[in-house]
Amino acid sequence: MCKAPAVIDLPRHNAHFCAEHLQQLCRRQVAKAIDDFEMFAPDDRILVAVSGGKDSLAVWDMLIDAGYRADGLYIGLGIGEYSTDSGAYARRFADERNLDLRVIDLREEYGYDVPTASRATGRVPCSACGLSKRRLFDQAALDGDYDVVVTGHNLDDEAAVLFGNTLRWDIDYLARQLPVLPAANGFPKKAKPLVRLTERETAAWCLVRGIDYVVEECPIAAGNRHLAYKESLNAIEATSPGSKASFYLGFLERMTPLLADRSAAAVGELHECERCGAPTTGEVCAFCRLVDKAAAHVPVPVELVVGRRR
Amino acid sequence: MCKAPAVIDLPRHNAHFCAEHLQQLCRRQVAKAIDDFEMFAPDDRILVAVSGGKDSLAVWDMLIDAGYRADGLYIGLGIGEYSTDSGAYARRFADERNLDLRVIDLREEYGYDVPTASRATGRVPCSACGLSKRRLFDQAALDGDYDVVVTGHNLDDEAAVLFGNTLRWDIDYLARQLPVLPAANGFPKKAKPLVRLTERETAAWCLVRGIDYVVEECPIAAGNRHLAYKESLNAIEATSPGSKASFYLGFLERMTPLLADRSAAAVGELHECERCGAPTTGEVCAFCRLVDKAAAHVPVPVELVVGRRR
Repeated sequence: MCKAPAVIDLPRHNAHFCAEHLQQLCRRQVAKAIDDFEMFAPDDRILVAVSGGKDSLAVWDMLIDAGYRADGLYIGLGIGEYSTDSGAYARRFADERNLDLRVIDLREEYGYDVPTASRATGRVPCSACGLSKRRLFDQAALDGDYDVVVTGHNLDDEAAVLFGNTLRWDIDYLARQLPVLPAANGFPKKAKPLVRLTERETAAWCLVRGIDYVVEECPIAAGNRHLAYKESLNAIEATSPGSKASFYLGFLERMTPLLADRSAAAVGELHECERCGAPTTGEVCAFCRLVDKAAAHVPVPVELVVGRRR
Repeated sequence: MCKAPAVIDLPRHNAHFCAEHLQQLCRRQVAKAIDDFEMFAPDDRILVAVSGGKDSLAVWDMLIDAGYRADGLYIGLGIGEYSTDSGAYARRFADERNLDLRVIDLREEYGYDVPTASRATGRVPCSACGLSKRRLFDQAALDGDYDVVVTGHNLDDEAAVLFGNTLRWDIDYLARQLPVLPAANGFPKKAKPLVRLTERETAAWCLVRGIDYVVEECPIAAGNRHLAYKESLNAIEATSPGSKASFYLGFLERMTPLLADRSAAAVGELHECERCGAPTTGEVCAFCRLVDKAAAHVPVPVELVVGRRR
């Protein structure tokens, strides 16, 4: 692109990028996503779901860099050393930049952790983890009067989830796989500003911006189907650069209109959980039921859950 | 399944099969496909598109075995030794069983072959080949008063094509990817009775039935995207047996209803080619234009086309 030294080659753009042009690319793609999908307005208060990994720290940095008002929320999931490390990266990022990071520790505040919840409920760990995070981010956004919850899901994440939903032709999941979900039925608005950026690009953003992040994958997630779908798509991308982006963006452009009727119907009849007030289809919501079982269970060390999967 | 020696293990059925039970499985899956998708009736006259490979010989054998009236048509594509060999296998199969096989040689009857057509028209070889075969099978079915053209596309083929169409979200192609297409607009009815069988299963059918077939892939097709999509799906199937079948059959069950409106609209305005009378959207159909260019071109040996792709 210019004469400055390249930091990354991007085959789908058929070019090498220097630090400055890489940042320009990222800023443009994020601005385009926010604009195209009407994610939020300049004055909206944003709550970023922070994991300590490259994507959530990159999206928080990009939002602040672009002048948005964005606070962070980190949830301590109790996944051994991985959680200790990722929490430290999240705190350091916020401290160094004088940003507002709230921390919720599952064990301290709710009496359980993800490995224990998985064992106590019989759910796969990623399911127990996702349920906990969704509920706590939603609640924090509503309590804190935020306009939108932002997550760091990137193009690779969304393409892999889309691939899984497509392999099963799960029409209800497909209908709801959107880069922005409006506030509705007691849920806050949610947006994914990184859907036009790959994980190589967000990693490069962190590199050139001097952002330290937890590099390891979650030890429990390692080997799950989501990662297998990513590998499949990476193999296709390697022979046909750009196919990952055209898979995901083509879905949004040409397929979601055909699913529009199903998107609303897929939510179902909701009312308030009689314990916590969150929207649910049952009497007591899945999160309250999970907390009941998990907090009553003897703590399960992460090694036991990882060992079981392998 | 029984005490007879196993000839094949089928993880998606979680069992090993002996020669007899393998045949039973194949017969049932083919009968179910013919029945579920209303492919043809017991007295229909069937024209089988025969390539000399395992799938087309297997489907022909299965149809005869089930009591249907089925003739074959083999097209000599002029793809060097591959065509010589595959033609010999097709002829021997028909001769040994006293079946009716018609042979059309592109070079002798139309003055071109696939490598030359590809070079003369600038089409990729698989596109020139597919156009030629579709046109000649259609014409032969109409001329011979056949009720339906049957092809040997198996579950792996259909899943790979579906995967490619899905990666591009090509809605018009998706809308027309059906196991049976009714006769319409001057096209004959078409059916794919093997869509519920994998290529391992059709190969096993040939093995236990003593059917010799050309084992090599077409040398020009080797390395094309279709084969890369098959490999991706095979990797997923290896970790989650049954996912290939659920991908394709789930599409038929849950997705095609959403595409029904598009299926008819996708065909477009058709009238007769002013040269050959075949249905076309232009004045002269794509096949007549291909023959014009290809027959006027100096013959191109297959090695040149294969060499160009690699």
